[in-house]
Amino acid sequence: MAVTDKHILLMDGPDSKGLIYHVTGVLFRHNLNIIHNDEYVSPSGRFFMRTEFEGTFDNAALLHELQTTLPDSTSQSEITFRLNPKRKKNIVVMVTKEHHCLGELLIRYAFDELDADILAVVSNYNLLQPLVSKFGIPFHYVSHEGKTREEHEEAILRTMAIYEPEYVVLAKYMRVLTANFVNHFPNRIVNIHHSFLPAFIGANPYRQAYERGVKIIGATAHFVNNDLDEGPIIAQNVKEVDHRHTAADMATEGKDVEKIVLSQALKLVFNDRVFISGNRAIVL
Amino acid sequence: MAVTDKHILLMDGPDSKGLIYHVTGVLFRHNLNIIHNDEYVSPSGRFFMRTEFEGTFDNAALLHELQTTLPDSTSQSEITFRLNPKRKKNIVVMVTKEHHCLGELLIRYAFDELDADILAVVSNYNLLQPLVSKFGIPFHYVSHEGKTREEHEEAILRTMAIYEPEYVVLAKYMRVLTANFVNHFPNRIVNIHHSFLPAFIGANPYRQAYERGVKIIGATAHFVNNDLDEGPIIAQNVKEVDHRHTAADMATEGKDVEKIVLSQALKLVFNDRVFISGNRAIVL
Amino acid sequence: MAVTDKHILLMDGPDSKGLIYHVTGVLFRHNLNIIHNDEYVSPSGRFFMRTEFEGTFDNAALLHELQTTLPDSTSQSEITFRLNPKRKKNIVVMVTKEHHCLGELLIRYAFDELDADILAVVSNYNLLQPLVSKFGIPFHYVSHEGKTREEHEEAILRTMAIYEPEYVVLAKYMRVLTANFVNHFPNRIVNIHHSFLPAFIGANPYRQAYERGVKIIGATAHFVNNDLDEGPIIAQNVKEVDHRHTAADMATEGKDVEKIVLSQALKLVFNDRVFISGNRAIVL
Amino acid sequence: MAVTDKHILLMDGPDSKGLIYHVTGVLFRHNLNIIHNDEYVSPSGRFFMRTEFEGTFDNAALLHELQTTLPDSTSQSEITFRLNPKRKKNIVVMVTKEHHCLGELLIRYAFDELDADILAVVSNYNLLQPLVSKFGIPFHYVSHEGKTREEHEEAILRTMAIYEPEYVVLAKYMRVLTANFVNHFPNRIVNIHHSFLPAFIGANPYRQAYERGVKIIGATAHFVNNDLDEGPIIAQNVKEVDHRHTAADMATEGKDVEKIVLSQALKLVFNDRVFISGNRAIVL
Repeated sequence: MAVTDKHILLMDGPDSKGLIYHVTGVLFRHNLNIIHNDEYVSPSGRFFMRTEFEGTFDNAALLHELQTTLPDSTSQSEITFRLNPKRKKNIVVMVTKEHHCLGELLIRYAFDELDADILAVVSNYNLLQPLVSKFGIPFHYVSHEGKTREEHEEAILRTMAIYEPEYVVLAKYMRVLTANFVNHFPNRIVNIHHSFLPAFIGANPYRQAYERGVKIIGATAHFVNNDLDEGPIIAQNVKEVDHRHTAADMATEGKDVEKIVLSQALKLVFNDRVFISGNRAIVL
Repeated sequence: MAVTDKHILLMDGPDSKGLIYHVTGVLFRHNLNIIHNDEYVSPSGRFFMRTEFEGTFDNAALLHELQTTLPDSTSQSEITFRLNPKRKKNIVVMVTKEHHCLGELLIRYAFDELDADILAVVSNYNLLQPLVSKFGIPFHYVSHEGKTREEHEEAILRTMAIYEPEYVVLAKYMRVLTANFVNHFPNRIVNIHHSFLPAFIGANPYRQAYERGVKIIGATAHFVNNDLDEGPIIAQNVKEVDHRHTAADMATEGKDVEKIVLSQALKLVFNDRVFISGNRAIVL
Repeated sequence: MAVTDKHILLMDGPDSKGLIYHVTGVLFRHNLNIIHNDEYVSPSGRFFMRTEFEGTFDNAALLHELQTTLPDSTSQSEITFRLNPKRKKNIVVMVTKEHHCLGELLIRYAFDELDADILAVVSNYNLLQPLVSKFGIPFHYVSHEGKTREEHEEAILRTMAIYEPEYVVLAKYMRVLTANFVNHFPNRIVNIHHSFLPAFIGANPYRQAYERGVKIIGATAHFVNNDLDEGPIIAQNVKEVDHRHTAADMATEGKDVEKIVLSQALKLVFNDRVFISGNRAIVL
Repeated sequence: MAVTDKHILLMDGPDSKGLIYHVTGVLFRHNLNIIHNDEYVSPSGRFFMRTEFEGTFDNAALLHELQTTLPDSTSQSEITFRLNPKRKKNIVVMVTKEHHCLGELLIRYAFDELDADILAVVSNYNLLQPLVSKFGIPFHYVSHEGKTREEHEEAILRTMAIYEPEYVVLAKYMRVLTANFVNHFPNRIVNIHHSFLPAFIGANPYRQAYERGVKIIGATAHFVNNDLDEGPIIAQNVKEVDHRHTAADMATEGKDVEKIVLSQALKLVFNDRVFISGNRAIVL
């Protein structure tokens, strides 16, 4: 099948001499035009490249040629290629009670600025239903009351199943997820944590920040893996505070940081700009 | 003794109705002119006030009247007053091997911008002696080699004794101080820590930051108490980094943050703008 | 009439010895409790004080006593006192085509975080009507087509009249206002300008920023006076960009800054924290 | 002559399909190892690439092959290649009376952190001679008293001639340079301006900033061309201020920004990371 428009080639594997040359050569011979190319070699010798290009090509043939035209020194099997059309992602958003991140995503979505389609919002409270319904998006209230954590997550997974989301966005979903849930969406769950991680891991970070007397607060958007608040960090931002800020004031100020950081991180993720390397996010 | 010029009145104690009124009344009756007044009441009901004023007055009489003119509801014994002339502080700087914070302080001192006189520099290495001697300041090399921690600190204390410093500045002094040493200078030791505390407490914070993949690094100036890296935070600042920064790059970039944060914190401390309240610093 | 709850006393005039003492004395004698007090004396000798207090009092009596209990050296007629209950303000929002600032205000308003009631939205286009109607707020489309500037503004003023707004918020209203319009709301119109003023005054600031090759863009919230983009600045913020940002990219990134800066400025204004002094805003 | 170690290839010209492929191919065939590669295509279709590589090669042969191995569609004559060994630059620093930027450069130089050798300091005052002589660097006092601007600059040029500096750094040199002077060092003079350009062009920017009541101040490092304060911007940074800052306070705070921004810009320039494109600086 011949495809046109913009495409993104993602490549990662062990570094070797000539990688850029061989890959850009394949694109050149296919008469494809590189719009933007960025690559990175980690200190441990891992190569990452993101190439945005345009033109018409046969998808299978291009991938095959990429995989077989590597420098001799390169073990083909260790290199990963992903070839994505540049398009919006399908997502489901999970929330608890706070509206600020959700409101931000809804407004962006309503004006086509999210680089994603919000298929549904799922919550363990029904508090934000009125907000979501203003925007004509399905809202699923899946209470955790009277359920074990596993039962609750199973109910959420069943609810989500029909949407087949490419990404799950935790827009202030305030319950810890089990490994089982996370494994359904490997490297495809993005969370916003209300602190400048790794400071103030866990509950009530603004209370902790107040007690510690910090002069700067922050927020962190990260992928979720099996360790709470320990997944690869995509984006962070901060804001100055002083002794006059109570823990509640910090929480209020922090919300502005949280929602912007989450939006910025999602923009990177939805544009295929984030590689995961161990516990680090490489943003190209 | 009648004193003139600018003075700073620091007051702290339990809040009660009329405190500002009574204190400003005493200054008014003594014909003293308030240049700047700032106060803060903590959520737990503690009152802090810093008043900068000018005029001529009898020190003892003024303090006595302040202590005896409080509102009826106020327990005199719980209120602390400190009355300082506005003047430069005497300090000793402690360093190990890194020059960037020391260099910053020396240049500021040489051009009378430090609000303090550097009486001496003490180091457990002799590496920075050439730099210090350029500025005509005594440099004391007190090696820790072959000494227990206690012996080493005793040697430092003996060295410092003749200077009677009002503050000790740890400008990248890389050894942990014992409670005994700290107790010689209660709330009078300022340290610069090369991370955005409380993230990355302890050794090698930039290495930790790299491993964790943070997108922002920082530095923290704080008072030293008996818990390592746990004293009241005076000032913090941050800088954006990305995956391209190695731990060494972060350390290099971080130095610019460290030296500026330390200087800013010292300016606050040397101008009597910092109250300590539990583990928090109130900056007025 | 006796009033209770929280109140804000705003005072400004020429500085003289004893002002704080006399004013806090009046509050003390009325048994009112100061929650927060902040004052500032400008280099040219003008005194500003904002006092937040609680208690029950007779409004007229308190104001009278304040005005007559000044230090002898003070000319009563030159001092202004304003005594406001702490309450939400009534506002009208004006927009053109861009939604980001309006969306921010609507979400905050919907969750009672704006410190104001949005009585209506007025626009010279009907593009944002669907967004506004989601939130159940009157939307008035007052086209400028076929009208002189004066006729258009008269139509807007007639539309607004029934709302009697205390403040008019220009949330990306892209037409210049005449002196006649501005004079209807002296110091009561807040605008968000999409540049770090005074850089890039006038039209198309992001285009100008791109051409100039700046490395930082910004936004400025300010009061509107008769000189375009020249009124007192309430709040500003910035964001790093680099050569890869086109003018359109800068506009996109800038929107996040604009909406947050506008919200922060409005919070200050609606909480009676902003004094205007010539062309400068004093924020207490 | 065969050279080894690290090298930097800088290429710029009109974009065409296959540029990256052809250039990386030449390096591959010469068995050279790309450590870091970054490129940028401007909206107007100009291609910039910076390639850091290591290996042994014949300089002339490599350049010749680069120039002759371009894609057919590319006009050879329009492409510029520069091939630099990665090494420290030779510079002369010009100052007037302020010490903060000079002090910063001297300390960095003394500890080999400047990526440049300071060959000499030239000043129109002799105020900073004592500081410079601490570091054993020649200081040339070239007074402007009794000289026309042209005579003064000629005297400076004569003084500088023996040093043959690759770059001239204006570390708060407070006199406007003529086109004649600037033309001696095309794109090789870096200036630090004490405002967030293009705001507050010209004299006394902190005074202007105070009068305008801005809430953020900044500094700008830029190349000097014939229009005052109009050359390509290399780096900028900012700092929050408020109404309490006098113009003098802003100047004091601003110095910390100025010296760090200048250092950061110089690091980019001295590492061959800055292309100039019209009035914009491309930093790769």
